Amino acid sequence: MNISHIEHIGIAVKNIDEAIKYYENVLGLKCYAVEEVADQKVKTAFFMVGQTKIELLESTSPDGPIGKFIEKKGEGIHHLAFAVNGLQNSLEEVKSKNVILIDEKGRKGAEGLNIAFLHPKSTFGVLTELCEKPE
Amino acid sequence: MNISHIEHIGIAVKNIDEAIKYYENVLGLKCYAVEEVADQKVKTAFFMVGQTKIELLESTSPDGPIGKFIEKKGEGIHHLAFAVNGLQNSLEEVKSKNVILIDEKGRKGAEGLNIAFLHPKSTFGVLTELCEKPE
Repeated sequence: MNISHIEHIGIAVKNIDEAIKYYENVLGLKCYAVEEVADQKVKTAFFMVGQTKIELLESTSPDGPIGKFIEKKGEGIHHLAFAVNGLQNSLEEVKSKNVILIDEKGRKGAEGLNIAFLHPKSTFGVLTELCEKPE
Repeated sequence: MNISHIEHIGIAVKNIDEAIKYYENVLGLKCYAVEEVADQKVKTAFFMVGQTKIELLESTSPDGPIGKFIEKKGEGIHHLAFAVNGLQNSLEEVKSKNVILIDEKGRKGAEGLNIAFLHPKSTFGVLTELCEKPE
């Protein structure tokens, strides 16, 4: 596994417009993109902080993964995403080391990245995403 | 507020030795320091990922903040720390914008940084730390 940096940190919020105001007006960060990812039932907003993005996530449906997360745990940090070189090889490697994969193969995520999630049961409670820029 | 980058991500774990093995042997990261912070009742382990550190936190006492967090929410991401220029000015600025401060003034944290926490009630559920290198 070859991790280069933390690609982004996903944060679940109830109201993305209110949260964007906080990240911009209080923390002084700049929202550079808002995107809806229909199959994940989320609206997302992105901020660059050094080499890492903050991705705010608001559920567009109570039965989406972010809606369920907030229902169970409240607002807060939802997942941690590492940028890797060689997504499919990385998935096969971690699977061989007994990590449970949520996605057996990469799929299309926000910003056009190829992404896959590892199950928090096998990553010490951290919902972990691996991301790779498409060729 | 002038945030330069994400200084670290704090992750609460039950057994830091087991978690270090996962971060090293599965994710391929290198633990470069282990440190006990007595007044926070934690043992910490650090990994560099690009310009951001991962800080694993194991409670040395059930009544410490990490012990209570795991009791309530389970293992997982505990806090997000931003590197700022001008810690005291940053605290005064966010307080003037209705953010609740856990620490009114900077105090000494792991790795000799000056740190202060913002209350998650006023930061959309994210326990937020501001860090500055001492002069």
